[in-house]
Amino acid sequence: MEQNRHIRLGHGSGGKLTHDLVTGLFLKYFDNEILAQQGDSGLFSLYPEDASGSTTETAGNGMPAATRQTHSPTGRMAMSTDAYVVDPIFFPGGNIGSLAISGTVNDLAVTGADPRYLTAAFILEEGFSIDQLEEIVSEMARVAKEAGVRIIAGDTKVVNKGKCDKVFITTAGVGFLEDRLAHIAGGERVRPGDRILINGYAGDHGIAILGERESLTFRSPVLSDADCLNGLIRDITQNHDVHFMRDATRGGVATVLAELAALSKRPGAHKMGISVDETAIPVREEVRGICEVFGYDPLYMANEGKVVAVVPGDQTDAVLERMRRHPLGKDAAIIGTVVEDHPGKVVLQTEIGGRRMLDMLAGEQLPRIC
Amino acid sequence: MEQNRHIRLGHGSGGKLTHDLVTGLFLKYFDNEILAQQGDSGLFSLYPEDASGSTTETAGNGMPAATRQTHSPTGRMAMSTDAYVVDPIFFPGGNIGSLAISGTVNDLAVTGADPRYLTAAFILEEGFSIDQLEEIVSEMARVAKEAGVRIIAGDTKVVNKGKCDKVFITTAGVGFLEDRLAHIAGGERVRPGDRILINGYAGDHGIAILGERESLTFRSPVLSDADCLNGLIRDITQNHDVHFMRDATRGGVATVLAELAALSKRPGAHKMGISVDETAIPVREEVRGICEVFGYDPLYMANEGKVVAVVPGDQTDAVLERMRRHPLGKDAAIIGTVVEDHPGKVVLQTEIGGRRMLDMLAGEQLPRIC
Repeated sequence: MEQNRHIRLGHGSGGKLTHDLVTGLFLKYFDNEILAQQGDSGLFSLYPEDASGSTTETAGNGMPAATRQTHSPTGRMAMSTDAYVVDPIFFPGGNIGSLAISGTVNDLAVTGADPRYLTAAFILEEGFSIDQLEEIVSEMARVAKEAGVRIIAGDTKVVNKGKCDKVFITTAGVGFLEDRLAHIAGGERVRPGDRILINGYAGDHGIAILGERESLTFRSPVLSDADCLNGLIRDITQNHDVHFMRDATRGGVATVLAELAALSKRPGAHKMGISVDETAIPVREEVRGICEVFGYDPLYMANEGKVVAVVPGDQTDAVLERMRRHPLGKDAAIIGTVVEDHPGKVVLQTEIGGRRMLDMLAGEQLPRIC
Repeated sequence: MEQNRHIRLGHGSGGKLTHDLVTGLFLKYFDNEILAQQGDSGLFSLYPEDASGSTTETAGNGMPAATRQTHSPTGRMAMSTDAYVVDPIFFPGGNIGSLAISGTVNDLAVTGADPRYLTAAFILEEGFSIDQLEEIVSEMARVAKEAGVRIIAGDTKVVNKGKCDKVFITTAGVGFLEDRLAHIAGGERVRPGDRILINGYAGDHGIAILGERESLTFRSPVLSDADCLNGLIRDITQNHDVHFMRDATRGGVATVLAELAALSKRPGAHKMGISVDETAIPVREEVRGICEVFGYDPLYMANEGKVVAVVPGDQTDAVLERMRRHPLGKDAAIIGTVVEDHPGKVVLQTEIGGRRMLDMLAGEQLPRIC
């Protein structure tokens, strides 16, 4: 072990090494039941004394969608943070600023929360262009406005030239969480028979970054899918049951599926496995092609505007239809099923009729992807 | 202007250049009334529809301290963030991790909020020692526990060797804010006759960092004052009226006093100036000595555990006494008065009987101080 006691690029991959660092170090010291949930956001309540037994459906349940209250009588909230170090800082379909907004908005939205307030902290390299900074900040403002969130606090630090790379941005956010949606983050209602959906093409963000770095030319350009999913997700959660959601970012769709399968290992959880149809996962031709050339798997490629949602089997078609009515879900697809077989594991039915196991990303596929 | 369109170290100083960047860029684009308050935290309400006219004292006011509710019926909250890039990452009295916790706790506490939940995002340099990271993380956990806050979400990114400097940490936090304390952040009750207090020695953190960088030896070591002030502040706000608070960090005590004087320029504010007695500001002999050698002014030296509080004149002695009963306030002092003269300006009565004007820090005194 001793020779490995240094940080490697893979520790930031969002895959296996990140997971080891989180459980072996952060969870060990920052020991509390909220962080231990390891959701995309931490959940807390403003009035926790009223919130006992609170994942049962109480307030808002059974009320027609239009009059459902959009906040929680127990003051339930979600909070999340992400640091952005993407290289290059400008790429087809976005920049580090739009990513910093949509990433945190999405982390809140996939836990069922309504994202409201964000903070933004900038670490700037001495000599960085203020014009480029302005371009980044104006894009952050545009994306935030479109998503209906406000940036209410910030910080700026500057380090000497060569001590960071242009600009790093860390956003944090809070969202209000209806009590009836509080179960989504933990996924405790996921059970065999549920179906798994994705709102569109996998791997676009990763290939957009790779293409920019390697100056690749595409027949049709691959744009990053960086976008705020809270509108799409609200459409779904206000009209259908959702048992689990997670956004597929670093580590790709495969890592989210592996995390979904791992829910089965929790105490009291249904024993279940994940069965996925590889041919059903939307992947653009260009993305597939570049992945073949570079030896990457599109299922491990980063996304920044893709949600994997698990819904009760009998609501699958209705959710798919609703997703497809939203601009960010028009290429949505049903990609798999929660099954009773192979508990804790993801089994992929491959294009050529075989089966293979999917695991978390091991090592680093592309560093500084977000 | 064109030759200045690049980021300079002074843009991160917390002084004049930072102020220009915030107003000229961030406030311009992230345009909202919460951010525009420019407090140490942004304030929002979970139930804003109930919170109209909400800076009047309603809930909790007049109730005996012991039974005052510690949260707000309108769901009022404060949110804050800071990025930490301090160099060196270990220094006398703390490390980058303890700083990242206490800094955000203090930003919340000085707005009158009770800090509760924090996020922590790490940017790590490839090759950074995991043992050092563990030392940092364990210290974060210790400080957080002592302050009664929980770290409920986090993120880890790794950049290639040479693309950042060891480790940067960004924390964000939320605190619950009693309605009766919501006026503190804006300082709208500050008026002539109020007195200004500080809870102890100015400039310790700056000198501790400088000493470590320059390998200075002191007769008695100067330790950073990095500490969580929420306990001390709660003692005061639960027992006395407070009209304004701010923690003196980058930019030092002088910058906070300049910001206090600037309150006078707000629409509808009392016209008032700030009169400060230089000899009353506690500064250690060692700090004064090193500042003389390096040509620094201790009043612009960074602190990480100092609050400047403005209280009604008739409560000054009681607040001073209560501060001094707390371990982090034992060297507290009354340092100045809000006056009707020289509105918008800070006038310092100097040791040699003269007067000088204090302004915000211009340029950069010490880069990467926090």
